[in-house]
Amino acid sequence: MADEGLAAETVCQVALVVKDIEKASKAWAEALGLPVPEASLTGPAEETGARYHGRPTAARARLAFFNLGPITIELIEPVGGPSTWRDGLGEGGEAAFHHLAFHVRDAERTVERLRAQGMEVVQMGDFPGGRYIYVDGRERLGVTLELLASRP
Amino acid sequence: MADEGLAAETVCQVALVVKDIEKASKAWAEALGLPVPEASLTGPAEETGARYHGRPTAARARLAFFNLGPITIELIEPVGGPSTWRDGLGEGGEAAFHHLAFHVRDAERTVERLRAQGMEVVQMGDFPGGRYIYVDGRERLGVTLELLASRP
Repeated sequence: MADEGLAAETVCQVALVVKDIEKASKAWAEALGLPVPEASLTGPAEETGARYHGRPTAARARLAFFNLGPITIELIEPVGGPSTWRDGLGEGGEAAFHHLAFHVRDAERTVERLRAQGMEVVQMGDFPGGRYIYVDGRERLGVTLELLASRP
Repeated sequence: MADEGLAAETVCQVALVVKDIEKASKAWAEALGLPVPEASLTGPAEETGARYHGRPTAARARLAFFNLGPITIELIEPVGGPSTWRDGLGEGGEAAFHHLAFHVRDAERTVERLRAQGMEVVQMGDFPGGRYIYVDGRERLGVTLELLASRP
């Protein structure tokens, strides 16, 4: 694959926001025929440095993952401050599609390339071992993109 | 993986509905750093036997695919009669998430299992070599599921 655009080998994750992670995990486990995964809570803002539309946010999330070979289905229940997770869930609905994730080698260059195509960073934060960056591709691509970068 | 639920090895496809497949293909090609794929048109209703909410529909679609290793990103531009593609695109927007696809070994049994969990078939049709079945998991799972079955 050319070292352009996302320069990613493949989609690695499909993520949904959910109102109630226990309920959603159970429904997905039944649909997939897999065990119900345990949910975890992301770190506090001091640890993650979470930013939403350029400003620090106290947003956290409860996460659950289904590992399906090369793809992970991630369920995200928003907790705390403002976030694209909360935006994505909206007023109604138990669950909604949120983003497609791609591993990227050079997050800064990827963000620059996507910005040149008209897409902006809407949220980011650190997690143990890496950083996630949400780029708003909804208008141009129909979805939010997540760039996943390992921390050197 | 247990022979329950979808009994699928993994997600194989992430699909979006788009208003203009040439425009969307170009935008995705730029974002992914890949060549622009050529769009194809699905067969007429006589060939595909397309059904929407249980009734025959003249719906067709223009399709374009990006092959990303184990995952395909599919773009779908609705053409002709009523379809979940057209529903998914709604009034505004160039593109929107439509479904997650899974290869299944036994489509009939999978449909039965998902129906027992409260999810119904909303659209189906044949294509050369196989059949697709959309199951409405939006309320329960947050997404529409596509079952892809090879024709014996």
